[in-house]
Amino acid sequence: MIMTIERIFFDNASTTRVDDRVFEYMRPYFKKKYGNPSSLHDFGESAKKALDKAREQVSGLIGASEEQIYFTSCGTESNNFALCGLARAYKDKGNHIISSSIEHLSIINPLKEFGKEGWKVSLVPVDQYGFVSPENIKKEIRKDTVLISIIHANNEVGTIQKIKEISNIAKENNILFHSDGAAAAGIIPVDVNKLGVDAYSFTSQQIYGPKGAAALYVKKGVRIKPLLLGGIQEGGRRAGTENIPAIAGFGKACEIAGNEMDKNVKYISKLRDNLIKGINDKIKNVKLNGHPTERTPGNVHMSFEFIEGESILLMLNLEGIAAASGSSCTSQALKSSHVLLAMGLSPTMAQGSILFSLGKYNTQKEVERVLEVLPPIIDRLRKMSPLYKGQ
Amino acid sequence: MIMTIERIFFDNASTTRVDDRVFEYMRPYFKKKYGNPSSLHDFGESAKKALDKAREQVSGLIGASEEQIYFTSCGTESNNFALCGLARAYKDKGNHIISSSIEHLSIINPLKEFGKEGWKVSLVPVDQYGFVSPENIKKEIRKDTVLISIIHANNEVGTIQKIKEISNIAKENNILFHSDGAAAAGIIPVDVNKLGVDAYSFTSQQIYGPKGAAALYVKKGVRIKPLLLGGIQEGGRRAGTENIPAIAGFGKACEIAGNEMDKNVKYISKLRDNLIKGINDKIKNVKLNGHPTERTPGNVHMSFEFIEGESILLMLNLEGIAAASGSSCTSQALKSSHVLLAMGLSPTMAQGSILFSLGKYNTQKEVERVLEVLPPIIDRLRKMSPLYKGQ
Repeated sequence: MIMTIERIFFDNASTTRVDDRVFEYMRPYFKKKYGNPSSLHDFGESAKKALDKAREQVSGLIGASEEQIYFTSCGTESNNFALCGLARAYKDKGNHIISSSIEHLSIINPLKEFGKEGWKVSLVPVDQYGFVSPENIKKEIRKDTVLISIIHANNEVGTIQKIKEISNIAKENNILFHSDGAAAAGIIPVDVNKLGVDAYSFTSQQIYGPKGAAALYVKKGVRIKPLLLGGIQEGGRRAGTENIPAIAGFGKACEIAGNEMDKNVKYISKLRDNLIKGINDKIKNVKLNGHPTERTPGNVHMSFEFIEGESILLMLNLEGIAAASGSSCTSQALKSSHVLLAMGLSPTMAQGSILFSLGKYNTQKEVERVLEVLPPIIDRLRKMSPLYKGQ
Repeated sequence: MIMTIERIFFDNASTTRVDDRVFEYMRPYFKKKYGNPSSLHDFGESAKKALDKAREQVSGLIGASEEQIYFTSCGTESNNFALCGLARAYKDKGNHIISSSIEHLSIINPLKEFGKEGWKVSLVPVDQYGFVSPENIKKEIRKDTVLISIIHANNEVGTIQKIKEISNIAKENNILFHSDGAAAAGIIPVDVNKLGVDAYSFTSQQIYGPKGAAALYVKKGVRIKPLLLGGIQEGGRRAGTENIPAIAGFGKACEIAGNEMDKNVKYISKLRDNLIKGINDKIKNVKLNGHPTERTPGNVHMSFEFIEGESILLMLNLEGIAAASGSSCTSQALKSSHVLLAMGLSPTMAQGSILFSLGKYNTQKEVERVLEVLPPIIDRLRKMSPLYKGQ
């Protein structure tokens, strides 16, 4: 008899399954409506229509208007585009940028390059919950500060920042404010006008849309230099043939995410709370990372003392359960997460952490299965650990 | 009675229909094998396998090895990456770049930016056929020349450059050589070792693969700086979650293109020659642009005296025939093609040109249909033209 394991995907922060409705919607753009939207014929025209429709759907999700949306290929490109494009467009104003120590690597690493090119960069610290204090940002502001970039919801620990307070500070000081919303838009309600941001990155593959499409919102009147240069696509701000199937799918995913936001937030938060409670009840010496309440609906980030996250992952995987340790962008490097270290976790606690990220396709049954499988795994690993004394 | 027109797609240079086999191959990666290849679990593992397989297929098409291939989101990104990445990695050596006046805009426009940043750029002219003379490149070489970038096959007029001769010159002078192969790889046989290039760009959407995937080949030992910064994907050379469905599809498209190269070249060249002959036989005052024989299999680029290309396009479209005027990356700007002007065409001849680009899904019947429809269109437009005196 062959046993088949029903696989459980609790790694929705790394990427999500494409929604059936999204896939059906994007499907005609591969083999039927396959034109290039720049072409002057019917094939081009139907591609152009798909692009326009997607811009409407994508802008609608965050309360923006169509002409404020630039499509890119991924969240990383949107973040790189925002930083480089805004900084270069406003470099006459100064050369100082403020960001935080818990940004995604697609912000952190370009900022390192900026540093080499003569820019000054201040990375504001965070508290134990991963909060950037607006007051700390205020302290870093100088006459030559051009840009502030703060992540909206952290992709590892799920902490949702006080974006509105930070944007008020930016406005008072006439400084541009970008926020990386890759782990927020489509997951929690986002309105760029209410948040008061000048630029906002978000992506398709986190919200049941396909990989290969993302966006950067840029407020009207804000200048930005292109990152990719070539043709006149995206109003001359992002060259390269538009990935129409992916962009169409992203549009549909945004529409669905907006329509079903309340339902999903409620449903996923409930699963999350059940999982957190279950782990706390069943396993000793665990710690929830991030803020207890100000966190994204699907985020369950926990540190298990005395053991390594990677080992937990591998054993969960043998049981058909997919989870993550830290960000998938660095997991293969097996380094401690810069986010957890910035929050003051010891390297061993950081190494012993697991991110279960829940999504709309997960169920209470799956939560229960994890709660059944996880305690013996932790137990077994701790018994093998030289650090563990049977606490 | 409703007449349905069978639509004819003679615009394969702008993009191609996705091959049925490619679509079926990439399909599981949307809803089943949807993981992130960086993740440490089975979902990640199957995505990683798809990535590895695609790298094998894509490198195989151009005679490269897997570790020499970096995936990007489009041909424009590959070209931008090549120019910026190589120039920045070797800037200690000098600050002079040689390119040509008929490059794609994703080369031309970054070079303009380079010019503003203090780099010296020499654009070598071309002859009436669109050929870059290797001798002219030799003349431009200086002590501080870091990089030569020449397009392999021109995307508008189809002229195939003498890449091997140019690479010999680059080698003799110890200068890096990049070639933009977006209109060549998968369309004509390409072997990067025989061509002798240090870097080579190519793309999926020109060879019946999906949009959203492209590659840059970089020869072993050649240094390159990343364009997109963030996670450690693509060996740290291209950050951002890999677009697995598109990359898998690109891989399959490369495999098919390689296997069916001889058949397709023969079949498409025959259609091309029939179309050229038919137009020459039936219409006066026309001129084939590009070289009569050293051109890509599907390229039929013609200038029709006394009239505007855009008008021809629109009337062809009414008959269900899709063609292009110049590059689709600029068509919406309605500017004269820089390629045609560089070849010495007068602005009026440049404006009066049409690109029919044929592909493997086209048929002799479609060629005949165009030969039936085109002459009366040209005739009608010429009668309306103030420039035409009934020649």
